Amino acid sequence: MYPDPSAITRVASLGAGPIGGGWAAHFLARGYDVTAYIHDPSEHGALMAVIETGWKSLTALGLASDASMDRLTVTSDLSEAVEGAGFIQESAPERLEIKRALYTRLGEIVPREVVIGSSTSGLTMTEIAADCATPERCVIGHPFNPPYLLPLVEIVGGKQTDKAAVDWAAAFYELAGKAPLVMKKEVPGFVATRLQEALWREALHMVANGEATPEDIDIALINGPAPRMAVQGQCMAFHVACGEGGMATNLDQFGPALKWPWTRLEAPELTQELRDRMVEGCNAMAAGRHFEEMAGERDRKIVAVLKAVRDIG
Amino acid sequence: MYPDPSAITRVASLGAGPIGGGWAAHFLARGYDVTAYIHDPSEHGALMAVIETGWKSLTALGLASDASMDRLTVTSDLSEAVEGAGFIQESAPERLEIKRALYTRLGEIVPREVVIGSSTSGLTMTEIAADCATPERCVIGHPFNPPYLLPLVEIVGGKQTDKAAVDWAAAFYELAGKAPLVMKKEVPGFVATRLQEALWREALHMVANGEATPEDIDIALINGPAPRMAVQGQCMAFHVACGEGGMATNLDQFGPALKWPWTRLEAPELTQELRDRMVEGCNAMAAGRHFEEMAGERDRKIVAVLKAVRDIG
Repeated sequence: MYPDPSAITRVASLGAGPIGGGWAAHFLARGYDVTAYIHDPSEHGALMAVIETGWKSLTALGLASDASMDRLTVTSDLSEAVEGAGFIQESAPERLEIKRALYTRLGEIVPREVVIGSSTSGLTMTEIAADCATPERCVIGHPFNPPYLLPLVEIVGGKQTDKAAVDWAAAFYELAGKAPLVMKKEVPGFVATRLQEALWREALHMVANGEATPEDIDIALINGPAPRMAVQGQCMAFHVACGEGGMATNLDQFGPALKWPWTRLEAPELTQELRDRMVEGCNAMAAGRHFEEMAGERDRKIVAVLKAVRDIG
Repeated sequence: MYPDPSAITRVASLGAGPIGGGWAAHFLARGYDVTAYIHDPSEHGALMAVIETGWKSLTALGLASDASMDRLTVTSDLSEAVEGAGFIQESAPERLEIKRALYTRLGEIVPREVVIGSSTSGLTMTEIAADCATPERCVIGHPFNPPYLLPLVEIVGGKQTDKAAVDWAAAFYELAGKAPLVMKKEVPGFVATRLQEALWREALHMVANGEATPEDIDIALINGPAPRMAVQGQCMAFHVACGEGGMATNLDQFGPALKWPWTRLEAPELTQELRDRMVEGCNAMAAGRHFEEMAGERDRKIVAVLKAVRDIG
């Protein structure tokens, strides 16, 4: 039913804000024709400013051979915007009534084999597509700010979304140079924002208690966990740091510390099932590589990150 | 009373594990004479393996002009190890009775003007130095793993520690190429580990609830918040992302979301005082720079991080 994702040449990006503009810049940089929809002609300047800002970074990272800003069309006519588009990325304001009305309209004017991805960070597709005549092709494709730079796209459908549409979106985003993460459930905050929010709430507690200033928080992150986390997620960081024993050793040794008041966040019960999921997940990611090999790769990458950051003013 | 930190030429690193060895490698790379103390001669091989691993990365980052592995001495005689050292970094096993006995001995054999820093992650200096005759010069100097690569050192004294010793340690670590963070209070987990632990506990909740796999967690971090956090801490990330309004806009707009069940971590009450601390802290870090300038710098650095990581196998 859905077209071959690699056959898509035109994308519509709906929205003139930092997210809509960021998506437009990203798809242009990857060599797509892009039609950007703005709600009002007066938003043209703001949209172009976002795209031009993104274009600088995207150029530095390397453009697709056929990428060009000349392949951008801007319109405030929604029908014109979606015409001929093989994929639609919607980044309208985060208000349910606006999104719901938009999807009702999109349901009428966009052919049903065209997948529509929403950048929403706080709404579910079940809510957004409630009045859409064709909700089965509507998915959430949530980027991370700034969307022209950070590769993550979290993908999840609503109750009426086809699994095929979710899979299609994952395949398309990957072809379009993103790092798709398909979620099993509609969870508020998805994965990345939940993790970031946990850290953020603890930071607020520390500032509220006079234990740290905002500057202390940032110094600690930039010089501590973040450069490592940029090259090795927290699961694999612990897995590799524990040597031969890996995640099993981490959980067996530090499991009791989950009860300690390090952070105000209550940890889950470390059941055998949770332990097994963590250990098996890390072993799968390691895919047979020895921890020393992975630690070596981690170190080379951290060196590159530290040098990269140091050499830029 | 304490010597000029810039006059220190010899450091003693106590401990043969990844932390003690990592510290020895770091100080060697920064051009110090280093005496490494190992509890037993049989630990010599393990210590050297850690130092040699660290040396590769430190060489890639750039060694001090007079740095040399030849300036390392290894001994299992504690008196010999500390002799002539202008600073002592202690990374003994994390057991209170071991550390306490060690500090009792160090209190007898190390001149009282020599500051002693402990790598402990879970004990307080108040506990460790309980039986030390000279606790006033004993501080915690907690590194982040891997200690030869990540710059952070969290510094805090115990109840009997002189403020002058804490200040001296901060000055010395900075001269020695580290990023010191002086804490106002003895807080379990210091700053960085508390933040990381909040994120980690939420990750465990997500895995326990079947909302994400360990791989999902790592994909989300590596492709989402981490590359940004490596160049801009979470406070300044929000401050800059909110444009002209900065942190004040962030808190006023998203404050209510602190009540939402994004993460299982309960957020603190967003009092006027907390709001002011956050806003004033971010304004101080911005130091008058316009958000567009800071966003531009953020983007150039993220580009460099992404390229650096991509180009390394």
